[in-house]
Amino acid sequence: MEYKERKFELPQLIDMSKQSVDGHLELYAGYVKNFNAISAAIEGLLSDPEKNALAIAELRRRHSFEFDGMKLHEYYFSQFEGGPALLTEGSALAQSITRHWGSTENAVKRIIQTGMMRGPGWSILYFNPESGMFHMGFIGEQHQGHFATLPIILALDVWEHAYLLDYGVSGKAKYIDAFFKNLNWSVMEQRFAKATS
Amino acid sequence: MEYKERKFELPQLIDMSKQSVDGHLELYAGYVKNFNAISAAIEGLLSDPEKNALAIAELRRRHSFEFDGMKLHEYYFSQFEGGPALLTEGSALAQSITRHWGSTENAVKRIIQTGMMRGPGWSILYFNPESGMFHMGFIGEQHQGHFATLPIILALDVWEHAYLLDYGVSGKAKYIDAFFKNLNWSVMEQRFAKATS
Amino acid sequence: MEYKERKFELPQLIDMSKQSVDGHLELYAGYVKNFNAISAAIEGLLSDPEKNALAIAELRRRHSFEFDGMKLHEYYFSQFEGGPALLTEGSALAQSITRHWGSTENAVKRIIQTGMMRGPGWSILYFNPESGMFHMGFIGEQHQGHFATLPIILALDVWEHAYLLDYGVSGKAKYIDAFFKNLNWSVMEQRFAKATS
Amino acid sequence: MEYKERKFELPQLIDMSKQSVDGHLELYAGYVKNFNAISAAIEGLLSDPEKNALAIAELRRRHSFEFDGMKLHEYYFSQFEGGPALLTEGSALAQSITRHWGSTENAVKRIIQTGMMRGPGWSILYFNPESGMFHMGFIGEQHQGHFATLPIILALDVWEHAYLLDYGVSGKAKYIDAFFKNLNWSVMEQRFAKATS
Repeated sequence: MEYKERKFELPQLIDMSKQSVDGHLELYAGYVKNFNAISAAIEGLLSDPEKNALAIAELRRRHSFEFDGMKLHEYYFSQFEGGPALLTEGSALAQSITRHWGSTENAVKRIIQTGMMRGPGWSILYFNPESGMFHMGFIGEQHQGHFATLPIILALDVWEHAYLLDYGVSGKAKYIDAFFKNLNWSVMEQRFAKATS
Repeated sequence: MEYKERKFELPQLIDMSKQSVDGHLELYAGYVKNFNAISAAIEGLLSDPEKNALAIAELRRRHSFEFDGMKLHEYYFSQFEGGPALLTEGSALAQSITRHWGSTENAVKRIIQTGMMRGPGWSILYFNPESGMFHMGFIGEQHQGHFATLPIILALDVWEHAYLLDYGVSGKAKYIDAFFKNLNWSVMEQRFAKATS
Repeated sequence: MEYKERKFELPQLIDMSKQSVDGHLELYAGYVKNFNAISAAIEGLLSDPEKNALAIAELRRRHSFEFDGMKLHEYYFSQFEGGPALLTEGSALAQSITRHWGSTENAVKRIIQTGMMRGPGWSILYFNPESGMFHMGFIGEQHQGHFATLPIILALDVWEHAYLLDYGVSGKAKYIDAFFKNLNWSVMEQRFAKATS
Repeated sequence: MEYKERKFELPQLIDMSKQSVDGHLELYAGYVKNFNAISAAIEGLLSDPEKNALAIAELRRRHSFEFDGMKLHEYYFSQFEGGPALLTEGSALAQSITRHWGSTENAVKRIIQTGMMRGPGWSILYFNPESGMFHMGFIGEQHQGHFATLPIILALDVWEHAYLLDYGVSGKAKYIDAFFKNLNWSVMEQRFAKATS
């Protein structure tokens, strides 16, 4: 059983070049490919689990790097499908965020602030259905620091590949601006609806 | 809004001393307390987000260590509630595992093998409802390498505090034996039912 | 070429039980053994570097965990050899620390405070010969966050195995007290002399 | 006491654009600045170490990310100073590498293979003066997995910023080719001489 690369119906993105987005999609495909390759390598080595114990262990330790690289990019690109759309005022997501942080502006500020943290990774808005709380997370690379099991509402990629070509090494803030211009908030509303169902 | 310490209805555990389990529960309480403390510290520092940017960033980066320490221990201890019970033959979980790995023995072998990896952390069995696949993960400490968003079916703690008092520094294998003796598999069946609903 | 386990001339340690220290030495031996095992596994897989690229990569990524586990424990245990001895007043190390942090008490406070940080790891005092500065580091596990290339002056192990048997899950502060009672500061003076030569 | 940005006497680099190198130097400057900023933030918070314990801890945990980002880039750029020069046949470094790995070609192959590993980081050749052994390390980001205290002989940056502008997301191998074309091996010979003195 293998994971398959998803195809995204992307509109023309605002302030993000085709070259940059195409390269980004190529990286996404690499995560799918490498997740499957590690799965296969582990299965092969399990023919002799004693002899291959060290290699199996280290491939396992790395497996989630590829899995999360695959999943987070699927969260990322699907946020652009359908084209830009604002958060619906009075929607369940808007109300819940406002209850939690006072206003949706405050939530966006926290997502941006977390995205501006140093190092390759992700600024992620999680929702915990059990407690009814939102949590902001900074994920190192693809896999370090996830809030275990929590559904993801919004995922902002802040690896260098996300902004370097269009905005240069100091251009992360401009890229994050562009990211928010392209967001289809109805996708996040659907994720929230699913998380609370 | 704060997280509260859960109380577990633990039976007398087989081959795990009261001293060890009491210490373990004390550590769990520490995660709850420290998660809330970091939440409060971030909120305090957000009164001046520019000036306190560095401290806010690093507290955020650490937040999931405490959250996951809390959540994983809740998965861990609740697996013992109700006392030992075998996996129901023919149950949805048993069938699904058998389809995936040939037999439940194979699944248990993988959980053990992953638990025997070096370093403090967790051997975790995840299920991906979208793909219908199980995944084995080794989580460093509490937070490194989670399969993002995936429901957890079984969580085996392999930090030193889980086995040192009862079995000594070389006693991890014996501890894992004891862990499986105490498992109430109906808990895992319920988690699987929820993940697939 | 393999690394060999060092033997330490340990005096009877104050407030640290023989059981705990013997277990700790056993763990040290495990790092030496596993470092050599990973070295051998990599060399074996390099017979076909294309086919085995994934396994080689992940064993390499892990190699320093074992190396640092070996080296840091050598720094740790050798600090007890010869028995307790205070820092010589007016020594080069004492003068340099005083210049940097006002007093040796301040340095000890920082080492303790860093040791009290949450998570398995080390509180380490480094010295940078190029800048003449001391740096305090918290090292996650054995290998995360080292100040690259810097000589180590003092290494305090704060993994659970260092204190759990003698002091319980909440006994880290008491263990650190015991650690300082056993220190032979002439060892640190020699390390500093070597770092500045 | 603060660290200062070093200025490098770089020749015109082969197959690396001025735009890319200038951006890279700007990132280096950011590490120096942020190391000093974290140092200052910790000192400020130490005015009340009890109250600020959490923030101090997390800033300490991060300090080496900035330190290593600074130091590794100094190793990196200084390797280009003076312009390209081959490893001197029969030099102490060449002889020692040949004794260890059969030939310098084998060493270069390992450096390249390690550099091709997935994830932002560094391929680093260390030398252990105590054992007379070379070690290859893959360092995650700037700070994960260093061989503690070991002198660095060669440091190859494989973050995305090192190759994205000139070679695109799939261009790491071409960038590594360019890196080796620009190396002044007399710098590595001097590092080795210092490490063995």
